[in-house]
Amino acid sequence: MLGAIEAGGTKFVCSVGTEAGEMIERIQILTEFPEKTIPQVIDFFRKYQIDALGIGSFGPLDLNDQSDTYGYITSTPKPGWVNFPFIETMRKAVNVPIAFDTDVNAAVWGEFLFGAGKGLGSCLYMTVGTGIGAGAVVDGKVLHGLSHPEMGHILLRRHPQDEFEGICPYHLDCLEGLAAGPAIAKRWGKEGARLSESHPAWEMEAHYLAQALLQYVFILSPQKMIVGGGVMKQPHILPRIHREMERLSKGFLTLPPLENYVVPPGLGDDSGIVGALMLAKKLLVEKNVKNNM
Amino acid sequence: MLGAIEAGGTKFVCSVGTEAGEMIERIQILTEFPEKTIPQVIDFFRKYQIDALGIGSFGPLDLNDQSDTYGYITSTPKPGWVNFPFIETMRKAVNVPIAFDTDVNAAVWGEFLFGAGKGLGSCLYMTVGTGIGAGAVVDGKVLHGLSHPEMGHILLRRHPQDEFEGICPYHLDCLEGLAAGPAIAKRWGKEGARLSESHPAWEMEAHYLAQALLQYVFILSPQKMIVGGGVMKQPHILPRIHREMERLSKGFLTLPPLENYVVPPGLGDDSGIVGALMLAKKLLVEKNVKNNM
Ligand SMILES: Nc1ncnc2c1ncn2[C@@H]1O[C@H](COP(=O)(O)OP(=O)(O)O)[C@@H](O)[C@H]1O
Ligand SMILES: Nc1ncnc2c1ncn2[C@@H]1O[C@H](COP(=O)(O)OP(=O)(O)O)[C@@H](O)[C@H]1O
Ligand SMILES: [Zn+2]
Ligand SMILES: [Zn+2]
Repeated sequence: MLGAIEAGGTKFVCSVGTEAGEMIERIQILTEFPEKTIPQVIDFFRKYQIDALGIGSFGPLDLNDQSDTYGYITSTPKPGWVNFPFIETMRKAVNVPIAFDTDVNAAVWGEFLFGAGKGLGSCLYMTVGTGIGAGAVVDGKVLHGLSHPEMGHILLRRHPQDEFEGICPYHLDCLEGLAAGPAIAKRWGKEGARLSESHPAWEMEAHYLAQALLQYVFILSPQKMIVGGGVMKQPHILPRIHREMERLSKGFLTLPPLENYVVPPGLGDDSGIVGALMLAKKLLVEKNVKNNM
Repeated sequence: MLGAIEAGGTKFVCSVGTEAGEMIERIQILTEFPEKTIPQVIDFFRKYQIDALGIGSFGPLDLNDQSDTYGYITSTPKPGWVNFPFIETMRKAVNVPIAFDTDVNAAVWGEFLFGAGKGLGSCLYMTVGTGIGAGAVVDGKVLHGLSHPEMGHILLRRHPQDEFEGICPYHLDCLEGLAAGPAIAKRWGKEGARLSESHPAWEMEAHYLAQALLQYVFILSPQKMIVGGGVMKQPHILPRIHREMERLSKGFLTLPPLENYVVPPGLGDDSGIVGALMLAKKLLVEKNVKNNM
């Protein structure tokens, strides 16, 4: 039995499941201060005998296992979670091997194994919700390097009609600062879910997301790009992104038909939690291989 | 014995060498029309009995081995080379296995094995010359996906003092259109090599290159970035790039000391040709593994 946590800015999803990716139970817990949220998380796993735990967490995270703060959430603007020792806290509670990565890295791993990226060698998963982030699988492995990518914070060209200053606490008008859910709400004075389909917000939103996705193509060239998150619940936004990518890439990039190339998640809202479960499985498999050597 | 070609927009470098990466002979040939250049290339290899050939070429290239135009240079603005069947032409002449990739992918492979990226798991190589391009090694492998990356064509924010329209034949003011050698020459009316160290060209140049390198960090997070090409011969440009990256990333990214993170090529001007030689070696090794299975 495997355990998984998808730690988001709004809610934690906790689940136990099988190595085949089947979920046996799952719950949601509101993301409040760690002192309030984490005990509920631990309680959930107490009921089960898990062999490994996979965590996909909001970040930034310290993923460098040589570092003193390995396994920490580091500089998040989320109150209470700065320097939260996630691995350490969970290890004390469950005492099993723990796989730890970003929420979007977990999600792309889930989509790669069972979702829209199944059967490919590479793919990218982007979420457009309270924040914007993306993770990638390259050649069958989750992309890491110096650290995890920070694809939500790239700088884009401003839309000519956009005078909004942006709300990223680090950069103001990076991608996340201009195009995540809260940026839409602040710019137009209304939540995205309450803006009509013909509202100019959506062409602007599509412009930013298309630009970002094209940067990912230029730099990473993934075989498929999967876009999820709350803002993508607007049914007209994906076709708008396709049109805008078409316009912006014209005559240069040869891309597959965009409706097959930039797609919604195959696992719906479960990419992250399924991916976290599969990160736990991967860790177990690697440990077994090592033990048998 | 291995053969290698570094096919650039200005010159072809041809070499034969050993599997250890030692070059036995190398020549340079001017890049003119294929009918003029290619026979000289073929003549060079006639003198040797090579077992495999590695090619690192200017692009864009078709690297999809399922495609009808696999092994072609595709849509280049370089006259005479559009739809040039590079692999086919060379195979007819030398009849050995041919490894084919972009010039910058060859260069990053060379730097990863023997240069500034030696001993790491990932690195990126960027050239700033007649064009701008970059290639990456991720987890010990040259990064490919849907196709090869096109990192030179990303869009950046314009420098507030820059009114130059840009010269990329596809995008006008993408990175290459604003910051490659010919863009500097056209914007300021003088070749970069003839602009004084205090000329405002250099702060602008550093601004664009720093922005681009930060995009690469956000999206790929390489363990080291290696920057070469003619424009980098200006000894003051790399420190300027470091300062500008520092300024632009402040308070967000935790990067290693930049003078160790963004560095000149360890192989000087040989990254590409040594990398092409090593691509040939890799192909041979893979073929032997297959034959022994
Ligand atoms: N139907 C919708 N249309 C537009 N925006 C939406 C919609 N539903 C949710 N959102 C926005 O998405 C964001 C929440 O994203 P979500 O992915 O659900 O959560 P989180 O990013 O916290 O995991 C909020 O900013 C919300 O306004
Ligand atoms: N010392 C220098 N300072 C600035 N620019 C230079 C210098 N030397 C060469 N360049 C520029 O670099 C470009 C050539 O780049 P190079 O890497 O040598 O060739 P290529 O990109 O064709 O392989 C030209 O645009 C040239 O003006
Ligand atoms: Zn930001
Ligand atoms: Zn361009």
